[in-house]
Amino acid sequence: MMQPSDATPAYGRLYRAFERLHRFEHLQQIVYWDRAAVMPEGGTQARSAALSELAALLHQHRTDPALKADLAQAEQEDLNDWQRANLREMRREWRSANALPEALVQRRQQATAACEHAWRSQRPANDWAGFLPNLRQVVQVARDEAQYLSQDLGVRPYDALMDRYEPGMRCEQVDQLFGDLQQWLPGLIRQVQARQAGRALITPQGPFSVEAQRALCAKVMDLLGFDWQRGRLDVSTHPFSGGVPEDVRLTTRYRTDEFLGSLMGAIHETGHGRYEQMRPRDWLAQPASAARSMAIHESQSLSFEMQLGCHPGFVGLMAPLIRQAFGDQPAFELGNLQRLLTRVTPGLIRVDADEVTYPAHVIIRYGIERRLIEGEIEVEDIPALWDEGMAHWLGLDTRGNFKDGPMQDVHWPEALFGYFPCYTLGAMYAAQWLATVRQQVADVDARIAAGDLQPVLGWLQHHIWEQGSLWPTDELARRASGQALNPAFYRAHLEARYLRD
Amino acid sequence: MMQPSDATPAYGRLYRAFERLHRFEHLQQIVYWDRAAVMPEGGTQARSAALSELAALLHQHRTDPALKADLAQAEQEDLNDWQRANLREMRREWRSANALPEALVQRRQQATAACEHAWRSQRPANDWAGFLPNLRQVVQVARDEAQYLSQDLGVRPYDALMDRYEPGMRCEQVDQLFGDLQQWLPGLIRQVQARQAGRALITPQGPFSVEAQRALCAKVMDLLGFDWQRGRLDVSTHPFSGGVPEDVRLTTRYRTDEFLGSLMGAIHETGHGRYEQMRPRDWLAQPASAARSMAIHESQSLSFEMQLGCHPGFVGLMAPLIRQAFGDQPAFELGNLQRLLTRVTPGLIRVDADEVTYPAHVIIRYGIERRLIEGEIEVEDIPALWDEGMAHWLGLDTRGNFKDGPMQDVHWPEALFGYFPCYTLGAMYAAQWLATVRQQVADVDARIAAGDLQPVLGWLQHHIWEQGSLWPTDELARRASGQALNPAFYRAHLEARYLRD
Repeated sequence: MMQPSDATPAYGRLYRAFERLHRFEHLQQIVYWDRAAVMPEGGTQARSAALSELAALLHQHRTDPALKADLAQAEQEDLNDWQRANLREMRREWRSANALPEALVQRRQQATAACEHAWRSQRPANDWAGFLPNLRQVVQVARDEAQYLSQDLGVRPYDALMDRYEPGMRCEQVDQLFGDLQQWLPGLIRQVQARQAGRALITPQGPFSVEAQRALCAKVMDLLGFDWQRGRLDVSTHPFSGGVPEDVRLTTRYRTDEFLGSLMGAIHETGHGRYEQMRPRDWLAQPASAARSMAIHESQSLSFEMQLGCHPGFVGLMAPLIRQAFGDQPAFELGNLQRLLTRVTPGLIRVDADEVTYPAHVIIRYGIERRLIEGEIEVEDIPALWDEGMAHWLGLDTRGNFKDGPMQDVHWPEALFGYFPCYTLGAMYAAQWLATVRQQVADVDARIAAGDLQPVLGWLQHHIWEQGSLWPTDELARRASGQALNPAFYRAHLEARYLRD
Repeated sequence: MMQPSDATPAYGRLYRAFERLHRFEHLQQIVYWDRAAVMPEGGTQARSAALSELAALLHQHRTDPALKADLAQAEQEDLNDWQRANLREMRREWRSANALPEALVQRRQQATAACEHAWRSQRPANDWAGFLPNLRQVVQVARDEAQYLSQDLGVRPYDALMDRYEPGMRCEQVDQLFGDLQQWLPGLIRQVQARQAGRALITPQGPFSVEAQRALCAKVMDLLGFDWQRGRLDVSTHPFSGGVPEDVRLTTRYRTDEFLGSLMGAIHETGHGRYEQMRPRDWLAQPASAARSMAIHESQSLSFEMQLGCHPGFVGLMAPLIRQAFGDQPAFELGNLQRLLTRVTPGLIRVDADEVTYPAHVIIRYGIERRLIEGEIEVEDIPALWDEGMAHWLGLDTRGNFKDGPMQDVHWPEALFGYFPCYTLGAMYAAQWLATVRQQVADVDARIAAGDLQPVLGWLQHHIWEQGSLWPTDELARRASGQALNPAFYRAHLEARYLRD
């Protein structure tokens, strides 16, 4: 249905051009994975040169003047709905690649490479002063990008950056959603902490061998339907889901004193991975087959990690596998495992945060980066805002601790401004999906506990994964759940799990 | 010294064009490695499409009409000797890429992909009849290639194919070298077998864990100076040395009932790997930095595996590492290890052959493929010639056993006609290198036994690795050893090791 016909020559040329891009991106993704997972240190310089050459080639293809004419001509061709959706997404990709002057693209590359490289050693050294000038350069580049994109799209600068990750999402809506959270989440955090304060919690006793953890992750990924014929699980310093839909590369990391981190990390990445593996297979090279947005992507990883992974029924499925992996111990009793996985503890590090305090980390970053991009603050102002936010939301004193503060994430060194909101939007969507499954399918929770994940996985497959980018995000959500994003589901989920357990 | 100047604009354009090619080839090599070492089965189709797209891009760059003009213009520019050597190698690469019409390149790709894919299941099924029609297609393509290249170079068709792997080598010389072998090697094989017949040989008792084998390989690779900052050792079905000079990817394979195979395989690949790692570093992207030829490449792997790896002094260095890896056992006694590594046993499989019978496998293949390419025989004639050769050289009856006969190697399904001679030429060169080191450095054998490999490794580094492709092969050999390839060193080596041990 997506394929061109003789009657649609311009669409046909675009179809083939995007297919070619997809193939070059395949090489790029595999080589990225290689760099993160297996490349020895000495390969860095040659690898960067090779990837730059490929980036230049991709840019050249994406800015080929013929595309502009074909996009215009294809609009006039007799396209079916699928083809028209594909054309819309082609235009989106084209627009985002063509909005920025080449010199700015190169400046971004240089500024982020320098900042990220120095950050690797500055962060452990808590060297905020050293980090500042580099970050200032990166912010300047991001502001310039935001200006160009803002003019192109006719939206506010920060909206224009966010649109790259979450098409159609605007600050106005984020402010409303996060403003709502602000009303009830700090109270909920305190309530949950009070409820959990008196509870006994048995810590699992290590060491946990990497081999056993690896095998456990693989078994749990089997439960979740990960397709090993079209994907792998490896190790990297920063876990990610990469590769290509035909060959998804997930990574996790192992510590021998603790195993829940690698396990829940693997479950999280499996959500990303299955979304990619199950994208519409007949036209994987086409933009309409791509994952809808980063919030929808995070909604899959969080449907897996938080909605399913911490679900008492699913924990019941994991418990015997955990005992099989490490032998029996009191900590592996079902109730204790469940308490370990739902323990709420305000902490400094976003990626280690529990489901309840996580949004605080996002909201603090969102507030800062939005004001940075829109020129209301400068990089020097970050620490004070950070300290204030962490004290307000989580009651933590972060003064002087930059490495576990504004230097903790790679997002800013890499100029990924506009991404952070997607994590919490994803958590909200995930709650909405599971609530919808419960409305549509009887006894879902009992079926999960009985080992039948098909009601959930089948629903996600049909309503999210196989939809690719056929619909704008709001429409995807409406078709899946009867309404656009509604944060009430998220609140209901947290209250049910943390106040009524 | 290789860099262009303002006075050499055409050479400068070529320099940058080859640099760009090197970067794209980097991606290609890493993705090849990925396919062989880690890619899941389901990624095959998408990977092939991506690699084809890259191959087309590389072909487009290599056949860019601007190169032809620049090659001609650069000849007139004021180049130093290094630049002139680089220009010579540029022309060689350009010529080999431009000699074939695009349609033939595609036909080769299709025929070899189909033949190789079917061969994977036909070989275990001993399905010669099924293999024949595919091989016939491949041979036809190779004959066509040979015709084009032959006209371009003004040499015989098989010479033209061989020239791709071994520039300047011609059948006339190979016939002479192999004819010489024919005089004395069959007799030597019988003599050695008779000498070894009465000897006690203790077989190592497994199982040998993969982890311990991996660690042992790594320690022996350390002895040989492998640079782990710029390379890795992994596992693949067919061991190879791949990657890029800045990041060399070696593979071996492990069986738990036997460990010498993985160990000697790793030593072999380390020879290839160090050659690549130590190519002239300042202009790795330039053709003059490339390894000289495939025979010279094999001379490095065989200098490592056969000259050093089976050297009693080196075996003495490995023995304690072997005991460390697997515990002590009678088979690990130095003399027994040495006898295991120098055991001569005529067998069906080339890659498992010992140093003495190996040339027989090569000579049989050379005789067959040369006559195939030059149209003297057809694919139907292969089995009879195979059976005759194996009976004559090794006294083995191979009738009806196609899978361990003419179907055993991937070379023919992949149309790598002209490569086989390089293995034995490499063994001859390796003997010549080590004999030269012995002439130039006092007490080399004692120093090896004492753990000092620098006389050998330093000699190879200086005379081979760091020379890249600065000289034609004969000149390289003359500068290194005072003479072009001389098979007398090989005979002397075998006689010394196998008749006077």
